[in-house]
Amino acid sequence: MAEQEQSYVRIEEEPLKQLVVELLKHYRVPENDAQIVSDVLVTADLRGIESHGVSRLLSYYISRLKTGYMKAEPAVKITANQGATFQVDADNGLGHPPSYRAMEKCLDLAEKYGVGLGSVKNSNHFGIAGYYSMMAIERGMIGICLSNAQPAILPTYARQKHLGTNPISVAAPAGDKLPFVLDMATSIVPLGKIQVSARKNISIAEGWGADHTGYTSTNPAAVLEGGGLYPLGGPAETAGYKGYGLAAVVDIFSGVLSGSGFLTSVLNPLKNDDPCQVGHFMAVVKINAFMEEEVFKNRMDAFIEELKTASKMEGQKEIFVAGEKEFYTWEENRQKGVPVLENVWEELTVLCRELNVSMPEPL
Amino acid sequence: MAEQEQSYVRIEEEPLKQLVVELLKHYRVPENDAQIVSDVLVTADLRGIESHGVSRLLSYYISRLKTGYMKAEPAVKITANQGATFQVDADNGLGHPPSYRAMEKCLDLAEKYGVGLGSVKNSNHFGIAGYYSMMAIERGMIGICLSNAQPAILPTYARQKHLGTNPISVAAPAGDKLPFVLDMATSIVPLGKIQVSARKNISIAEGWGADHTGYTSTNPAAVLEGGGLYPLGGPAETAGYKGYGLAAVVDIFSGVLSGSGFLTSVLNPLKNDDPCQVGHFMAVVKINAFMEEEVFKNRMDAFIEELKTASKMEGQKEIFVAGEKEFYTWEENRQKGVPVLENVWEELTVLCRELNVSMPEPL
Repeated sequence: MAEQEQSYVRIEEEPLKQLVVELLKHYRVPENDAQIVSDVLVTADLRGIESHGVSRLLSYYISRLKTGYMKAEPAVKITANQGATFQVDADNGLGHPPSYRAMEKCLDLAEKYGVGLGSVKNSNHFGIAGYYSMMAIERGMIGICLSNAQPAILPTYARQKHLGTNPISVAAPAGDKLPFVLDMATSIVPLGKIQVSARKNISIAEGWGADHTGYTSTNPAAVLEGGGLYPLGGPAETAGYKGYGLAAVVDIFSGVLSGSGFLTSVLNPLKNDDPCQVGHFMAVVKINAFMEEEVFKNRMDAFIEELKTASKMEGQKEIFVAGEKEFYTWEENRQKGVPVLENVWEELTVLCRELNVSMPEPL
Repeated sequence: MAEQEQSYVRIEEEPLKQLVVELLKHYRVPENDAQIVSDVLVTADLRGIESHGVSRLLSYYISRLKTGYMKAEPAVKITANQGATFQVDADNGLGHPPSYRAMEKCLDLAEKYGVGLGSVKNSNHFGIAGYYSMMAIERGMIGICLSNAQPAILPTYARQKHLGTNPISVAAPAGDKLPFVLDMATSIVPLGKIQVSARKNISIAEGWGADHTGYTSTNPAAVLEGGGLYPLGGPAETAGYKGYGLAAVVDIFSGVLSGSGFLTSVLNPLKNDDPCQVGHFMAVVKINAFMEEEVFKNRMDAFIEELKTASKMEGQKEIFVAGEKEFYTWEENRQKGVPVLENVWEELTVLCRELNVSMPEPL
């Protein structure tokens, strides 16, 4: 979520990507891996999802590489492999490279079997789930990506967090229209929204989160300290048990079935020395196994057209399809340069000076 | 949702199933098909989902068989078949038999490939999605079932309904614990809840549905007549766009990819003579392709145990896992007899008298 009140610098896309690669290489991340991480992070910033972009390079990744809490050169291996399915052990390395390669393998399997499924265990935070699901679009297939995360969500009727914000992403190609890209946390709002309100000392809406009693609180500090986020749907009265169920499904695939951590055994990267035990799950469906790709794309265009031209609520100018706003933001940021929060850029400047790495000039 | 204010008769399970079979056979439905439909409907009633049970036998199914709007003896055929995937054309017959058989085929494919995927097009309402996903549990696999339905949900910022209540069901086996069975509509509440409030002339909660303006209304009649249900999450402010996105994903798989109707081309069975064009999508994942079934079941037990023993909100006695309440209801109804709404039983009595079909006595 863009935090409008903060200020940004804008950096050209390629030099920014190269800077991220250089910094990761400095901490012994192999070049190929570093390029994948860099592309995932900068893509998040381009799409306007700054909470998952370069702003996490130091806090989530480099800090753990520095301490050795996360391995720069993990021995990633395939630990199960049957038919159209496989399981990867990421050996506590960065989450992005094994996820990228797992998605590539799903694409190859789907080419052959009509569907490919893969899980990644013993991993770490992998950026935006949408990056991986979108990899399928270019090959004319439908991509799905799930991941668990450290506890943030209260199960319905509980007063402590047990489930991560466990994202679900599904991407499907269209023809003349923009692709459909759902990329959503199963919490009602992202944690970042609560953090921003806490910093600004303003109330949050009812039903976003709970304090230590499990009941809704409009005090962001109380939600951050004691309670947690409600699942999509909010409290039980507004069907929050459905969001809770969806977050659980994501954890069953990403954590239980993958052989990784699940629920509270997935650790917060900012607060723990031990491996975070994050798990991911990805799937690809080959459209051609069901109908010709062109027919599907035309049908998607009709699907999107019906939604875009639906009668609008008074005062609303546009109905959006999942991912659409992010594509507009992407387009804009490609032209204007990648927005990086000023304080993040300052942190990077300090680090680069220390390491004697040269930086691009802001635009 | 149980409508507590209404009265029920209780009928023994097997004689009730046999009655449903007899009635369907009277309208030329083949015995094997009739048995599947009967089992799906009575299972819904046993699990306490009366809105999808025997109460729909006349309105949704027999009425359309009688008029020929739905075929009793459709020529169901497989229209695509590649690797671990297939597509079925249900030829405008009852939705339950081709869905049951598609799920069986997914199970066989998953046995071989680790995963099986199938779609069903040109179908009709198939009862509860959870029936089909649960078929996987008995075989030690994970089942997924999706379906689209006639428009009921408003896309975010729209004021007319374009998406069905498009259910998502995921079922996974556990060891000593009850299986995990999520079976949820992607609307915030079921349509039935609004209808009950309208009949009782009482207000509904804010955020459940909208009147013809697209804005929330507490008047159930205004929601039923002009507007529609909000997706899971409610209006945009409480992340309803996520529920809208999920409903769209279900329609992309069940409708667009299956080759069936989608959005407003899926018709309401109570209001149309034309084929309803409902589409379904099912998937099975073989646990053994990822880890030993016993290991998975032990991990599921630990997953469920953590949720069940989490600290509860004050005033709450129990934290539930998806499907758990329905298993308790099932157990109770198996002992007491299947609950059938009194007015539904009266309608059936009239029909049976007309057709000279004998009925079981209520318990």
